[in-house]
Formats: sequence, structure tokens, C-alpha cells
Amino acid sequence: MRFAAETGDSYKPHEECGVFGIYSPDGTVQPAYACYNGLLALQHRGQESCGIASNNQGVISYSKDMGLVTEAFTPEILEKLDGQMAISHVRYSTAGGSVRENAQPLVLRYAKGVLAIAHNGNLTNAREMREEMQQAGSIFQTTIDSEVIAYIIARERLHCRSVEEAVVRTVDQIRGAFSMLIMSPQKLIAARDPHGFRPLCLGRIGENTWVFASETCALDACGAEFVRDIEPGEVVMAGPNGLQVIRKGDSSKKALCIFEYIYFSRTDSVIDGVSVYQARKAAGRLLARENPAEADMVIGVPESGVDAAIGYSEESGIPFQKGVVRNSYVGRTFIKPTQEERARSVRIKLNALASEVKDKRVILLDDSIVRGTTSARIVKMLKDAGAREVHLRISSPPFLWPCYYGTDIPSKEDLIACKYSEEEIARLLGADSLSYLSLSALEQMIPGKKGFCNACFTGNYPAEIPDLDSYSKLDPYTQPIKRI
Amino acid sequence: MRFAAETGDSYKPHEECGVFGIYSPDGTVQPAYACYNGLLALQHRGQESCGIASNNQGVISYSKDMGLVTEAFTPEILEKLDGQMAISHVRYSTAGGSVRENAQPLVLRYAKGVLAIAHNGNLTNAREMREEMQQAGSIFQTTIDSEVIAYIIARERLHCRSVEEAVVRTVDQIRGAFSMLIMSPQKLIAARDPHGFRPLCLGRIGENTWVFASETCALDACGAEFVRDIEPGEVVMAGPNGLQVIRKGDSSKKALCIFEYIYFSRTDSVIDGVSVYQARKAAGRLLARENPAEADMVIGVPESGVDAAIGYSEESGIPFQKGVVRNSYVGRTFIKPTQEERARSVRIKLNALASEVKDKRVILLDDSIVRGTTSARIVKMLKDAGAREVHLRISSPPFLWPCYYGTDIPSKEDLIACKYSEEEIARLLGADSLSYLSLSALEQMIPGKKGFCNACFTGNYPAEIPDLDSYSKLDPYTQPIKRI
Amino acid sequence: MRFAAETGDSYKPHEECGVFGIYSPDGTVQPAYACYNGLLALQHRGQESCGIASNNQGVISYSKDMGLVTEAFTPEILEKLDGQMAISHVRYSTAGGSVRENAQPLVLRYAKGVLAIAHNGNLTNAREMREEMQQAGSIFQTTIDSEVIAYIIARERLHCRSVEEAVVRTVDQIRGAFSMLIMSPQKLIAARDPHGFRPLCLGRIGENTWVFASETCALDACGAEFVRDIEPGEVVMAGPNGLQVIRKGDSSKKALCIFEYIYFSRTDSVIDGVSVYQARKAAGRLLARENPAEADMVIGVPESGVDAAIGYSEESGIPFQKGVVRNSYVGRTFIKPTQEERARSVRIKLNALASEVKDKRVILLDDSIVRGTTSARIVKMLKDAGAREVHLRISSPPFLWPCYYGTDIPSKEDLIACKYSEEEIARLLGADSLSYLSLSALEQMIPGKKGFCNACFTGNYPAEIPDLDSYSKLDPYTQPIKRI
Amino acid sequence: MRFAAETGDSYKPHEECGVFGIYSPDGTVQPAYACYNGLLALQHRGQESCGIASNNQGVISYSKDMGLVTEAFTPEILEKLDGQMAISHVRYSTAGGSVRENAQPLVLRYAKGVLAIAHNGNLTNAREMREEMQQAGSIFQTTIDSEVIAYIIARERLHCRSVEEAVVRTVDQIRGAFSMLIMSPQKLIAARDPHGFRPLCLGRIGENTWVFASETCALDACGAEFVRDIEPGEVVMAGPNGLQVIRKGDSSKKALCIFEYIYFSRTDSVIDGVSVYQARKAAGRLLARENPAEADMVIGVPESGVDAAIGYSEESGIPFQKGVVRNSYVGRTFIKPTQEERARSVRIKLNALASEVKDKRVILLDDSIVRGTTSARIVKMLKDAGAREVHLRISSPPFLWPCYYGTDIPSKEDLIACKYSEEEIARLLGADSLSYLSLSALEQMIPGKKGFCNACFTGNYPAEIPDLDSYSKLDPYTQPIKRI
Repeated sequence: MRFAAETGDSYKPHEECGVFGIYSPDGTVQPAYACYNGLLALQHRGQESCGIASNNQGVISYSKDMGLVTEAFTPEILEKLDGQMAISHVRYSTAGGSVRENAQPLVLRYAKGVLAIAHNGNLTNAREMREEMQQAGSIFQTTIDSEVIAYIIARERLHCRSVEEAVVRTVDQIRGAFSMLIMSPQKLIAARDPHGFRPLCLGRIGENTWVFASETCALDACGAEFVRDIEPGEVVMAGPNGLQVIRKGDSSKKALCIFEYIYFSRTDSVIDGVSVYQARKAAGRLLARENPAEADMVIGVPESGVDAAIGYSEESGIPFQKGVVRNSYVGRTFIKPTQEERARSVRIKLNALASEVKDKRVILLDDSIVRGTTSARIVKMLKDAGAREVHLRISSPPFLWPCYYGTDIPSKEDLIACKYSEEEIARLLGADSLSYLSLSALEQMIPGKKGFCNACFTGNYPAEIPDLDSYSKLDPYTQPIKRI
Repeated sequence: MRFAAETGDSYKPHEECGVFGIYSPDGTVQPAYACYNGLLALQHRGQESCGIASNNQGVISYSKDMGLVTEAFTPEILEKLDGQMAISHVRYSTAGGSVRENAQPLVLRYAKGVLAIAHNGNLTNAREMREEMQQAGSIFQTTIDSEVIAYIIARERLHCRSVEEAVVRTVDQIRGAFSMLIMSPQKLIAARDPHGFRPLCLGRIGENTWVFASETCALDACGAEFVRDIEPGEVVMAGPNGLQVIRKGDSSKKALCIFEYIYFSRTDSVIDGVSVYQARKAAGRLLARENPAEADMVIGVPESGVDAAIGYSEESGIPFQKGVVRNSYVGRTFIKPTQEERARSVRIKLNALASEVKDKRVILLDDSIVRGTTSARIVKMLKDAGAREVHLRISSPPFLWPCYYGTDIPSKEDLIACKYSEEEIARLLGADSLSYLSLSALEQMIPGKKGFCNACFTGNYPAEIPDLDSYSKLDPYTQPIKRI
Repeated sequence: MRFAAETGDSYKPHEECGVFGIYSPDGTVQPAYACYNGLLALQHRGQESCGIASNNQGVISYSKDMGLVTEAFTPEILEKLDGQMAISHVRYSTAGGSVRENAQPLVLRYAKGVLAIAHNGNLTNAREMREEMQQAGSIFQTTIDSEVIAYIIARERLHCRSVEEAVVRTVDQIRGAFSMLIMSPQKLIAARDPHGFRPLCLGRIGENTWVFASETCALDACGAEFVRDIEPGEVVMAGPNGLQVIRKGDSSKKALCIFEYIYFSRTDSVIDGVSVYQARKAAGRLLARENPAEADMVIGVPESGVDAAIGYSEESGIPFQKGVVRNSYVGRTFIKPTQEERARSVRIKLNALASEVKDKRVILLDDSIVRGTTSARIVKMLKDAGAREVHLRISSPPFLWPCYYGTDIPSKEDLIACKYSEEEIARLLGADSLSYLSLSALEQMIPGKKGFCNACFTGNYPAEIPDLDSYSKLDPYTQPIKRI
Repeated sequence: MRFAAETGDSYKPHEECGVFGIYSPDGTVQPAYACYNGLLALQHRGQESCGIASNNQGVISYSKDMGLVTEAFTPEILEKLDGQMAISHVRYSTAGGSVRENAQPLVLRYAKGVLAIAHNGNLTNAREMREEMQQAGSIFQTTIDSEVIAYIIARERLHCRSVEEAVVRTVDQIRGAFSMLIMSPQKLIAARDPHGFRPLCLGRIGENTWVFASETCALDACGAEFVRDIEPGEVVMAGPNGLQVIRKGDSSKKALCIFEYIYFSRTDSVIDGVSVYQARKAAGRLLARENPAEADMVIGVPESGVDAAIGYSEESGIPFQKGVVRNSYVGRTFIKPTQEERARSVRIKLNALASEVKDKRVILLDDSIVRGTTSARIVKMLKDAGAREVHLRISSPPFLWPCYYGTDIPSKEDLIACKYSEEEIARLLGADSLSYLSLSALEQMIPGKKGFCNACFTGNYPAEIPDLDSYSKLDPYTQPIKRI
């Protein structure tokens, strides 16, 4: 659970990571370059740090650094990351903390050789497992779940015949959300948790090259053809014998994060068979049906709000327009205005098209409201630009519950919807009206599909959640270590 | 004239610069922070290098560096750029060359003190003036026009009573395109060439703080209120006596670059009284009228093509959709794919929404075609994604002539429209049909306004062009100096 | 065991590390600044990387980086390393390898909180202990002994009442050479191995501030008064109750590395009661007695050879002169000449004073010969400068055995003295005569003291040595991981 | 004139620069690598910034940066600095100022092509010439004399047939101290001022490769054979026709800076036929004759004081010892201790050998006293280390006059010898006695040679000095421009 107060998108919940891996035994694809392109496509899932670990006949080379993919890698570095396979990772930007150590992939040695791990998600029993291992004498050099996972793999590997078997045993012990890639001297293993909280898909280049990625947009970026999604609970391995399913998936517990469609994933990705763009447009259409408004135009907050606005326009017949534009050069941390200018800061990232909205009644689509601060600033910006009315439509239900499965939707005291009614929120935001997508409409957003996690809206957690109160205050995990 | 072969947007012509200046005698606004926000808003006009020069009671501090504004400046640097006024600059990314020296503002000493200059545009007689001055013994440490301008100001200043008078005399001697800011120990002067090729506008914060910027979006970003555009030929000064018009403007020769509307400027800017967004939509509507097509959807190449697509959709009634999305993290130089993958490289920057375009007839709006390479790749990408038909509509006439006024539209041998007919180009690009905006439609794009430069389409150059053939091959200006 | 082929001093054996720690509960001394000065004084013991970990009421902050102390630390970093105690480390420069991870101090969490470790020396049973722990499921992220030590402390701490007790138990399990500092949330512990291979001393500032350092020169640099050496086998703790001896030292097995006097330590340090400078001069005097030569002057290879030369001159009456000077700006890695110029490369680091040695008979003092390459180059340089005769005198016996206790004296196949007689070596080096210090003279070098390790000369290893042949080739420890 | 308050050697006057150039038409020597080695050897003459400009068939490539040679250059950079000739420069470290722009060589274009200049010395009429050129309209982007020189060459070149003739004409106009290298598209020109204030010598590699360097130690470092010194007033050119004397030298006005021997040059250099080491020893011997003292040992402050101490010991018969050692890792800027520790800061750079000086009467040789602060600290350090008596002997006369010829000996108010008698200074420094070298002894220091500048001791300036009082306070040259 983290707060993104200092980042460019502080008003939105954040996905914590993206993973990308490739197994290319015949050398037609350079794994590190494919990772580079894949990570560029997944950059929206994390901008704090990134890394690539490659494997050349068992010799691991890796490079990881703070910052964007374009900042962290040079042609010289990519050239040195040679080999026949590679895994890679982008990590979401947090404020402060011993973050340098937390960059992934994690690369280490254990009894059976070298191991590299890249992980997207959040283990709900990481703390317990960490404490248990510390009580057995283990030491921890990072605070990432990958280190816990590595320990379990290392221990299980001592009692079984192969690393893939150790991974299966590990998957049985860890709880929560994980879409992860594990690279051993000879194999590349992908595993998705039994609920399939986070997406993970499989692609192919030519005959023998296999690609795993958080989203299909990364397959497109590296020229891979989409094969299928990794199933919840499935463990798949690419190795000397080609692609093998090590453990079958099972959709019975499937609970894919619905917010992947609403906001997290890229609009051109297709997650578990459903187009993100079409899901967002569907939300807009459903909103138009449930919550119509008289207006001159429909506009959206880029990017996901624009998709919903196109849907709302289609359903309502009210023309779609650009009303808010985004400065794509301010996508990440930038120098903040002085305190007195803070209220105006949204205009550095977003700007209203005054020529368009002046004297007009505007329906404004956005994907969610967390604290409300930014929404209020956008409404004010439109009013300052001359908009006569601003009717805010949110393409998701109100956030009422925290997320424990790998996103940073905050605790209740920070969620505006936990404290105020819709009418009160509309007033606080300065909007002429406000409607959220209803829970029943949310169910229709993705027709013919089931198995989504909507816990942040409903509190119906599909898997155990950590018992935060039981954590000892003296747990070393809570003690800050600051890398300067 | 430069070619952008290595940059993220190599398929588009490039504006060469953006300028931003602020005069805030009472200290309510910190000039360097305002410049930072203004440059962020103007970043689309140049990503190679950027710089800020501030002036604290005559003491000049400056910082300039390669890269984006977010990369070049830190809070520590901004804090040191103290003072009551500042000018700043973003510069477009070129490939190779002694570029570090060419970053602006240029800061120097001359007989009457210190001087800082930031310049957008291209002087058509820079070479002659440079040669003339070299023949008088001058030395040149950069290849930017600002150094030529500085020399002329320095010489004129010896024979007149004030720096503003020297600037007026300088304006009379230089030819071509310039929107420039000059900072002397006590004054901030803005000048726009008599044709007004490049935009330049005036804003205000509170009573006494004056802002000059290439585009209005930069006024919005720093909280300034738009006052008016600087007129062609006008010289304006902010100084101890407030704002003064030093030389009156004159619209008789006005020839604003029409491509500022079509592509260069930000969609939320208003240039010389006309909304960029509305001009782009108008182009789309005019195209729909002139060049209709039967199709299932209208889509645009982000960003300017999307605006035109909205207009085309409005006029034609064919639904607007997102069909191509852009990866905003690949806006600038990134590591290119290997040679064999080059053809696929467009997919790293742009991606088709296969779920949307599959089996559909698509009208694709783009703003221009230079060499055609990228257009062909985008058409292919849509066809690969399953589009049944792709009807390409260009929201500007064909490029037939090079530009000498500050953009990098290349010479004829590189312009596809100089070599092939529309039908041939359509075939080369793989499009099912292709239409450009007609010249007559271009004239209607901005109703009720006159005075635009359309030389790149018509060859009607409103001002002298440099006599390139006359340049001696031995001119030292042509000799390469490489800063490693 | 490492080879220093790429460093500025490739011809000399290298000490692997220096440690410095300070406990200052009353805040009169800023621990990070004291570490900075202490590390500057110990920089000759390691130039690859350096680090400081500070402790402010249990909150650990640390910073470590590649390069020299002056490169790795800024005032901003030191300011953030706040607290009441700190430990720090300089590490010797190796060529290649996953070196970034190997920088010290190592900082980590375990069951009882946070821990930081800085270590000088080499454990002879690290491999076995590592393998044993890996067989129990441990993972390793570095290849430094400190990680092994941390694991043992972590496990022992589970079964005893205090971290100091865990350190004592750890000291009982590890073998080889270690002078180390351990920082827990409240305590700073220093431990020296039972043989006392590496130096470690105790100093004091004012009443309550305690300092531990590899050499006394670091006490001088931070203004501490020398108190005493830490005894072999001793464990000392500075904590809330002041300075406590946790385990008594015992000199019975003392085997201080004699090469600390001959070359490793700084000439102004006093190790275990003996001045390094006086030991070096004594070696020179003994050489003069054992191996006189007719000559016009005595000169030394800087720095340790100069000290010996002064002694040789005193004893022989032959005048001491500067004959070889060192370029102090080439102390660490620099760009090597091309292959053909390699033979001349010594002249970049060292130069002969031709005006002094021309036509003269010269006695040249140096501290040791490893491979002989550099000695040959120095002799040739003197001959090229016109020296009529060069009589080489080495202030130590010939290297015949590798070192396992924390230096990089190489294996026998690289030691020239293992392959050739003195006469042969003299001929190979181009010297007119060559003499080493005899073993019996070595014993007189430090009068009245016993307990030195001279294994590199005699093969009399005072402690167990690792059974290198038993190492499995498949041990993961041997598998390379390259951080790019 | 500058003050070195922040540098590692703040207590010594500083040479401002070193130059190195090479002309190698047949490609056997890589000019950039030779420059690299030459600059390493000249690093003691300047540590602020360094640069190399190479020339490949008229195409100039250059690289310059702040910091040491080992920091500023990488193999990749050297590889790109290709060509058949190169000039290079090291610059002395100043505190603050727009220093980045002042790095040399200066590379520029003028009417006849490209030009690169590297300069050691100080023009006494730079200000007047700059003002005159500014009054003619020139602009200045740096504050270095090289820019003034470039302007004069550029103007003269318009009226003569060759660049070498322009250089000769330039040499006739500039006053003061200059040893400079000028590189044109085809030629490498070396010029030394008529007084020969700064050293400059000529070397040769093989048949056709010519080297120019500030000191002979740089010839040694790049494998060049010493040919001869460049004569005062001489202009020499290496070009397509080999080496040519363009203008003959003339020793009649020779006034080589005597402080080059005492302190500035490296001990292994030979300047104008005299060994620096032997000059320093001679000073020590003369001091011993003029100013004997009863003592147990003679010691020196490294490095030049050690040379003088050896001479003093030879003459007096009192044994030479190491009594003060220098930390070679603290040669340049390092983080200073806090204010209260300032007095102790000398111990970070220098340390006393307490074991040697304890209870002893010590004669301490140093080369000069500027403000006295550091001398006092060294005396105190020796006393704290137990020295019974400290007799300070200075191997030069007292500084009484500022230098205008390229060093930073400060103005009178900062020179302790201008304010106090020898006895008072001894008392202020805490020394038991103090003697300077007498002026008559100084004359004997270099037997058989004449023509030295000793103005800093005598006020007998051999050339005009700038009329500082006449400088207008409004001169733009005095207005600060700060590059952040």
C-alpha cells in the first residue's frame, strides 16, 4: 500500500509493476532488445525503476536502475546483456524509501545455481513468511516480495528434482496476487496466482521463441503473436524441450482485477480475451444510459476518460470533443510548484481547451476519484475556462475499500467516497452533477465474462487479506533503512 | 534545414524552438520556476536541449543542458537562477553536430554589459551576415543565429542610446523568421519578424508581471492571463517603466506559418486569435467534404490527426474511434531496433487497436506525409491488425517545397509528393485511397483570416530565401567541429 | 585471491580493505564526517568502492558507491548520514566482476532488527559455511564474506540474549583473517580474529567518543587519540554503557601480517606498537648490512621503497637521493597505453630523474617483486636515463607462497621467485645485482616483537588454509553473475 | 589573480595551466592518447578542467570537461579524438565563477576556417585589448585570454598570407606571459612570450612526430625525446613541411619565473637546461649555509620541501628523515571539516610521523609562506606530535609582491611577509626559528644562468603590469555571469 504524492499522476491509483520475459534458443531474437521494447510498452505500469536480466548459457548478466526505460538503458548496456533468454521488470514510482535495492529482477545464488525473479503483484502472506524465515535465521536485503519467493524456491529446490517443481511448490505456499517470471540457468518459468489478479499472457515469435508479458501491447511492441493468456494458477515453462505446461490452470477462482480494464492497462491491450478500449467504451455507454445529462459536448480526462467519453457520446448522441489535453512530457516526477501555486499545478499536466468549452455545458468523463483533490482542480480548470456546466461522470463505482493485491488504492480515511455522499462530493468538487457507474452496470461492462475482483468497490475480497493489526511493531521489516 | 532521422518522430517536420520569458519586478513570481513550467508546456517545440538565464539586479545566472526540461533542471538549479526576470528556450533535437554549444539562451558580454538571447526561427541572411562579420575579424563559437544577432546588437549598441534601439536596428538588418527574447541588465525585450512567421504572445500575471511565450499553452501553464499576440514586426519591452511598445507592429506582410496550426503548435494553444484545435477540426471537416469515403470509422494518427479525425467524423457522420494509440514514453530518442526490425519500429511508438479495426473499413487522418516511410508503416500496421480498407486523408496539401523559415521540411529529393502522383503514393503506402487537403480548402481552414505562409505547399515564399548555391564550399561555417 | 591487472599499482600485492567506525553518543562529533576523514586516510587500503552506514537512534542510513572516497561522497550525502554512530569501509579495486553488489558496509534486516557489517580480511572457511547454509536453503546476493558473517550472526542471535553474544559465537565459527565492525540498533562492536592477521586499533575523542580503525593514521585524520590496539581474538563493544570488552584478547596465536609493515600500511601508522616507517628503515639498514654494494647513491621506488632507501643510506653512508618520482594523479585506474606502448607505461606512473642518475651507480630499493614485469621496467627506465649500474635491493624476502588471509599475493605460477634463482631474476630484470632481505633479517626488522605471519615467504601458514581442490566446479558461488 | 580557498593546496600559490601538443603526420602516434599521457604528467599545473582538441585532415574534434584528466576522459572519448595532431590543456582549479566556459582549448571558426588555442600564462594587456575590441563591436563568451588571442589572430589573418604570420603579428601585440599552442586546419604552432615567463619545450618521437609541452616530464610520459626549449619570443611551427622556426627567439629579455623551480614544476622536469630537483636541493644547501640550526633531523613538507630538505641535510650533515607525509588521495577538492575542525584540517592532507619527531629537534623545510595559516598548522602538528623544537626554513625569499604573469600569488594584504618581520612570523607560526632564502642566495641557486623573474620577491617586474586602478567599474568584464 503506497501513496504516490510526489508523482505526476498522484491522483490515480497505481499498478505496481509490469513483467516481460523471452526465451529464444535459436538466437533470431536478441532477448535484451526484445525486453527493452516490451518494457517501453509496459512503462505505464511502473516508472520508478526497471531492469533486465539475461542468460547466456547459464551466465547471468543484469542491469537495473532508477528511472524510465529510456533513461536506464543504452545500446552499450543492451549489447552486454547477451544470451538466449531474459526477464525484465518495470516498477512503479514510490516516494522515498530504500528503493534502489528494490529494483527488479532480483538475481541471486542458491544451492542449485543462479536464479532471477521478476514479480508483479502483492503477496498477502509475505510478512508471515518473512517472519517465519527470519526466525529460522534468514536475512533480508530488500523489502520486495521477490526475495521471499526466492527463499521459498531455494528451500523447496533442496527437496525436489527440478526448479519447476520448486516453483510449483512455492506457488502453493504464497498467497495473494502474483504474475511472475523466474529464470534458472536453463529455463524460463511463468506463474500466475490462482485468482489471476494480475494479467499475464503468452506470445510467440517464429517457431521457437516464447514471450511472456503483463499485457498484449508488449507482444505487439516486440513483434510477437498473441498465443493465449496464462491461466490463473497456471505454471508454464519455456526450456530445452520447448514450451511445457508444468501445472494446469484453473479458472474456478478467477478474480482478475476489474480496474485493469478501467484504468491500469493500456487501451490497446486485450486482457483475458477482452479489449481494454471496448470495456472502457462500454462503461461510458452504461453511464450514459444510467446517468444522462443535458449538455453540449462529452469530454474525457486523458487517457482512459477519453475512451469512456467516446462510449458516452455514442450512447447519448452528444458530440465527443477534446476538452482537456495532457502534456505528455510531464508523465513522471517533475519539480512541483511552490506551495501557493499547488492548486494550479494540475494545469502543468492537463489543460482545458478554453476555445471549445467556453459557455458550453460539458459532460466530463473520468475513470475514478480517490481523494477528490485532482478532480476538483480539473472541474475548476474547466469552469475557469468558461464552461457553463460540468457534469462529472465516473466510469467506475466509488472506491470504498483498500486493495491488498498489488495496487495502491489507499485506506478508507483517504477515500473521499467513504466520507461523503455523491451529492456532497459533487459539491466539494464544484461539479454541477456527479454520477458513478453502478455496481450492476459494472457487471455488464464486460459481457459474457465472469470472475473479476471488485473488492475496492464492494469489499468482497476473493482471497485472504493480511491481518495488519497483528504485525508486531518491533518487526524488523518495519524498521526503516534509508539508502542515501 | 535538418533531418530528424534519429528522433522519435522522424516522420514529421520539426519546429526548431520555443521561447519563454518573464519580467516580474515585484518578486511575486519566481522567474525561473515560471520558465520551468512554461518550457514544460513548450517541450513539443524542441527536445534536444533547454536553458534558462535569469537576471538578479544585473547579475546573470544561467543553466543549459542537453535533454528534456525534466532532465535538465533540478530544484537546486532553479533555486540558484534567482532574479526579477528570466528568458528560456527549448531546442529541437538534431542528429550529431556540435550541439552542446548550440543550446540557448546565449549569454555573453559586450561593450555595454551582459546580454542573453533566446531565438525561435531561422534567419535567411545569417550566412551573409556571418561571413561579413568574419571578414571584419569576428570569431564564432556556435552555429546558431543567436550569435549573429548578438554581434549585430553589440555593434549597433555602440552607436545608439539604448539596447532597445539597438534591437530595433538589428531587426531591420536580419531577414527571415525570428521570434526572439533579449535580456539586458535591466530590460526584457521581445521581437517578432515583420512576417510573423513564428508565433509569439504576451501574457500578464497580476499587475506588473509580464510574460512572453511562443504559445498560449505556456501562459496557461504558468498562470498568466493572455493579453495579446506580439504583432509582426513589433518590438516590445518590459522594463523599469513597465511594458512599452518600442516599435509598432504591422500586419501588412503577415505570413504566419500555416503548419503551426496543422501540426507544430499544441492543440490547446490559440495562435493569432485562432484555436489550433478548431483549425485542425476544420481541416478534417473540409477533407470530409472534398474527399468522402465509405467507411465504418474515422481514426487519427495521434495527436494532430486525432483532431482532424474528430472534424472529419462530425462532417461525415461516420463514427470517430481510437484506432491508433501512441506510447507517450517513447516521445524522444530511444534505442532503435536492429536493421531487420526497422520496419516494425513504428509499433514501438504507435500501436493499432486490433479489436477495433479488425474487418473494418477505416478512414485514417494524418497531418502530413514527408517521405512516406512512416505513413506506409502505419497503413501496414492497420492492415496487419485486420483493417479491411484504409483510406488515408491528409489534413494538409502535399509538401512540395522546402522551408527556410525555421522548420525542417526537407529538400525536394526527400519529399514523396515531388516525385509521385497521389495515386502512386496511395499505392506505395498500401492505402486503398489517399487524398490531401486542397489548397483552396486550406484557405478556408481559418475563416476570416489572411496572411499565412504556405510556401511549403505552393512555393510562394513571402520573404527572400537564402541563395544556397552561392555559398563557398570553403566557408568556415560549413567546416565540421565535433564536440565529443 | 585476485589479480590487479588493470589498476594503477598492478605490480604490487593489494590489501583488500580498510574499516573505520565511530560511536559518539553525545553528538559532539558527526560520525559520517569522521568516517569520511578516516576513510580518506585509509584510501591506500582500497580504491574500488567505499561506503558509510550511520545509525540515528536505530534508523540506519547508508550510502555506498564505486570509486574513491572523494568521488563517492558529497556534503549533501554526508549531511543525510546522521546519527550517533557509523561504520565505514574502503574496498580494494578488482578487475570486473559483480563488484557493485560487493561494496560494504552490508546493511540488512534479520529477526532482531537491522545490522550493518564492514569487514577486512578473508575467511578461509567462507565457502564451506556458505555451502552449508545454501544446503539449508539460504540465498546469497553478494560474494563477500560479510554476507556469510551476517547469516551466522542472524542464526546465533536467535539462541542467545544479545547481539554481542551472537558476535562472540560467530567469531568462534569463522576461520581466517577478519578485522570487522558490526553495528546493531544500539551498539558498535569490533572484532579481530585470533591471529590478528589484519590490524585494528582503538581511539578516543573527548570522554565518550570511541573510534575503531584499521590504522592509526585514520585516528590522526579524525582527531582521535590512540588508546590501544584491539587484541587478537578480542571483541570490544561501544554502547550505552560505554566501552566494554566482550571477549578478552589473547596474543598466544598472534600472527600479524608482516607485509603490513613492508608495504600495506601507511608509513605514518603505528601497528601493534611498531612504527611502519621505522620498520621499513630497519629493513633498509639490514639490507645494507647483508647486501652492500658500491654505488654513488641510494634511491627508492615510492613510497615504501623510499623509506627503506633512507635506512639503507643511513647504514651504508651512501647518499640518499630522489631517483624515481611518482605521479600522484595516476594512483588508480587510468586509460592504458596501446599494446605496443605497454612496456613504456610505467613512465606514466613513475619517472626517473635523469639529471640525478645519469652516469651514476645506483642502489634501488623496492619492497617486493611479484611477477617482475614492473621491476624490469623500472630498471630499464633508470638505465635509459643513463644510470651506469642499478643494484636492486628488495626490503622483503622472495614471495614463494600465496596468501589466504586477505591479500592478493598470487599463486605460485605467477611468482617469479618460484621459478628462477636470484641471479636469473637479476638477469631477467636487467639489474646489475639483486638481493632480497633474508628471512633471518626479516626477524630482526621488528626487534623485541614476535607473532608475525610470514607465510608468503615461508609457507608456514599459522591458520588453516582453504582446500581449494575440493571445491565443486558446480558450486553456484563459482558461477559468474555480471552486473552491467 | 585568484585565491584557492577551496582547493586541497590552498596554502600554495598556483600555476594556472599546462599545455601539450603533438603533430604526428604519419600516424604512428595517436595524438589524443599522447595528449592524455602528457596531461597526466602536467596535472600538477592545473586540476580544475582539461581538454583535448584533435585535427583529422582539418576536421576538429574536441572534448573538455571539469575535473582531473582521469575523470574527464574515457577510452571511447579518446578513440573519437582522431587525427594527425592535437593540442591539449589542464587548467588550475579556481573557486566559483563561470568556469565551465573557461575550459580550454578554445575551438572556434573565423574567416579562414577553424582554430584551436591552448594557453598558459596571463596577458597583462588582455583587458585593454578586450575593451578595445568590445568598442569595435566584439562579443565575448568567456573570460579567458585565449578568446582575446583568437580575436587578434582572426583580425590579423585577414591582412596576411598565413596563419603563422598572423600568430607572429599577434605575439607582437599581446603583453605579459604566454606559452601557447595554436592549431589551424593544417598546422600546429607554438609561441612563447619574449620574456619566457612560462616554460615550453620541444620533443620528438621518431623522425616526424613533434611534441610541445610545458615541462619535460610530459615528454617522458609520452615517450618523446627532449630536443630543446622553445626560446623566449620564439614562434615554431610543425606542419606539412616539418618543423619550422617562424620567428627566432631572443634571450635578451628572458625572465623565466624562478618559482617554477621552487614549487610549480615537477621535480623530474628540466626547465631551460636546469634540473628542478637540483635547483631545489641547491636552495636547501644554500639555506643550510646561511641559516644553520642545531637539530636532530631535517624534514621537508612534501613534495618540494622534501627536495630542499635533502639538500639541507647534505650541506649540514644533519640526517634527512621523513617527518611529514602527504595523503596523495586528497590532492584536490575534498569535503572540508566543519568550522570548529578547520584548524585540524591540515592533518587530512598531511600527517606528522610522531614516532620519528617525538622529543626531537627538527629543521622543517618548506618552499614558501603565503598567508601563514597552513605553515602554522604544520608547525603545530609537529609540536603536537612531540617535536621539541621546530626550525622552519623556507627555500625562497619572502613573498612581497603580487604576480601578474600567470600565477595566483595574492595581493599584499594577504601576504604575511608584507605585514610582519621574520621574528614576528616565527612567533605567529609557533616556530622556534624561521629563515627564508636570501635574495643573494636565490641568485646562486641556479649557477651560471641568468634571466629569471623574481618580481614576487623583489617587485622588479620585467614587463609592464596592468594598471588595475584604471579599470572602469562598469567594464562588462567585471560583471559576474554565473553558470549554474
